[in-house]
Amino acid sequence: MQIEHGGALDRAMERFGGTPGDWIDLSTGINPEVFPLPPIGLEIWNRLPDEKLLTSTLNAAREYYGAGSEAGIVAAPGTQSLIQILPDVMSKGEVVIVGPTYQEHRASFLNAGWLISNCASIDEIPPSAKVVVIVNPNNPDGRIIPREPLLELAKRMDSRGGTLIVDEAFADPHPEASVAAQAGMSGLIVLKSFGKFFGLGGLRLGFALTTRDIAQALKHRLGPWAVSGPALIIATHAFCDTNRLADYLARLRSRRELLTIVLAEAGLAETGGTMLFSLIEFRQAYLLHEALCKEHVLTRKFDYAPQWLRFGLPLDENAAERLQHRLGIALDIAQS
Amino acid sequence: MQIEHGGALDRAMERFGGTPGDWIDLSTGINPEVFPLPPIGLEIWNRLPDEKLLTSTLNAAREYYGAGSEAGIVAAPGTQSLIQILPDVMSKGEVVIVGPTYQEHRASFLNAGWLISNCASIDEIPPSAKVVVIVNPNNPDGRIIPREPLLELAKRMDSRGGTLIVDEAFADPHPEASVAAQAGMSGLIVLKSFGKFFGLGGLRLGFALTTRDIAQALKHRLGPWAVSGPALIIATHAFCDTNRLADYLARLRSRRELLTIVLAEAGLAETGGTMLFSLIEFRQAYLLHEALCKEHVLTRKFDYAPQWLRFGLPLDENAAERLQHRLGIALDIAQS
Repeated sequence: MQIEHGGALDRAMERFGGTPGDWIDLSTGINPEVFPLPPIGLEIWNRLPDEKLLTSTLNAAREYYGAGSEAGIVAAPGTQSLIQILPDVMSKGEVVIVGPTYQEHRASFLNAGWLISNCASIDEIPPSAKVVVIVNPNNPDGRIIPREPLLELAKRMDSRGGTLIVDEAFADPHPEASVAAQAGMSGLIVLKSFGKFFGLGGLRLGFALTTRDIAQALKHRLGPWAVSGPALIIATHAFCDTNRLADYLARLRSRRELLTIVLAEAGLAETGGTMLFSLIEFRQAYLLHEALCKEHVLTRKFDYAPQWLRFGLPLDENAAERLQHRLGIALDIAQS
Repeated sequence: MQIEHGGALDRAMERFGGTPGDWIDLSTGINPEVFPLPPIGLEIWNRLPDEKLLTSTLNAAREYYGAGSEAGIVAAPGTQSLIQILPDVMSKGEVVIVGPTYQEHRASFLNAGWLISNCASIDEIPPSAKVVVIVNPNNPDGRIIPREPLLELAKRMDSRGGTLIVDEAFADPHPEASVAAQAGMSGLIVLKSFGKFFGLGGLRLGFALTTRDIAQALKHRLGPWAVSGPALIIATHAFCDTNRLADYLARLRSRRELLTIVLAEAGLAETGGTMLFSLIEFRQAYLLHEALCKEHVLTRKFDYAPQWLRFGLPLDENAAERLQHRLGIALDIAQS
């Protein structure tokens, strides 16, 4: 089974032509601005990443995510690589996924032979659930489940020997939604994506914040030198650069406001979103998706929700203006 | 179980003092010269590595390793990450490891619940073996098993439903030893490390060359975007840069000759090695290891072979001279 994702500009260009420079790629929830890269010494490229380098990154991550000293923390080459092995570190049973949401959780548990159930809200989780997966804020609708019910659920899961997985891939600019500070409590695994907020999706870096035992099991499963030296250096630098972080977040906010304005002026109804993307509802969204492709704008459509279209962020005012122009043309076509 | 590896300069500095600049780190088999890096565009850091980028790397790898079009090929964040999942893509049984050798193969199959057997040569492999692991050239003794017996073994394994894994981590400068050209034949998996020969251990990149079915199973287990964008760009560039490759290999040869001279002049008996390291035999090698640490030279000792010491390559003549001087002092101490 091949799950469709955003980011496939190569396939869009095959079908609709154009060069990468012609396209506005809004198909992912990755910040289009790369957080300023530090110098990367030749020895970082040359040597296996050592324990000291890894520890400095994990300490910086712990501080940045606000996790306490009781939390176990593990770095991996992308949250996706953690999603691939999570079923391996828990005893098999039924996993309940609150969705619709990012589809790789389901795929991974399915491959590992788990029984999969879906439910639409936290109130509908059956007591048979051994593991619950919640993406928070959710992708693609941006639904946020507040901390209190999440932590209550984690306790309830733990009391019956189960686990709550909270995938906080999009939570960096929504700190009020994060339960990272509670990481370390039994029955809770929090996943963090480095690349989305920091605009470094190509780097492959993610973290799990959880109990020391589960962190150890994940680390053991990943094996030594799981994360590249450049990723460790870049992340340590980014986590600690408080001044730059404030400006970077401010620019992200402006970018999001630009997108809101463009969508509103085009008459598109925003039905959800996070700081990193907007979800709009449109009667025949797949027609709009195709019309936008013809104008070399790549958005993300959803097979399971033909009325939805997700827009990532334009880099700057110039990109927003180009988007506005092309969106106008595409809407004319899609509505005609 | 924590396996000791080379590359732990941080731990050596904790115990013996000094700064990274003070040390000559010869504890790994990684080429100390980083292959020239290409420019890495911001979009490579920013975007998820797409199918087109991955395909161009896989095509370049296929060409560089001399694998035919019938071979399946998969890229992973380091050969180690492939070693972690190999037991998952074969049905469980007895694995026979020809050794002593790199210890992570054993650890991975052990964790996966396989029965482990060891043997000292290819002639001693019991017929009960479901999988055989051979590192070729071997680490740390450099023993090379020629192609013919390896391919016969692969056929024999396949005829009884088994598999031969050939880990060619150190084979780049020993092309005559490689069976990569036969990848695709049933019953054979060839592992390739990118970082060792190209001096890019921090990058985390490795390949498996095998049947299309096993490659697909490994790819599926790794999940999407397993390898970073920078690693893909850097490797594609390196594989194709034929002119630079010739000079780079020549410099590697000189480096290896320098090491041979330094060891010979110190009266140390070389008992094996590859183009990337030398293994010497010394009655109390662990004493020499410690004496070298005091002189800020890090080598690799082996718990299972207290008479062995492995030396990686000094970068240049300057490093070789410093090594010669420090080795003299350390030998005086270790022999006194």
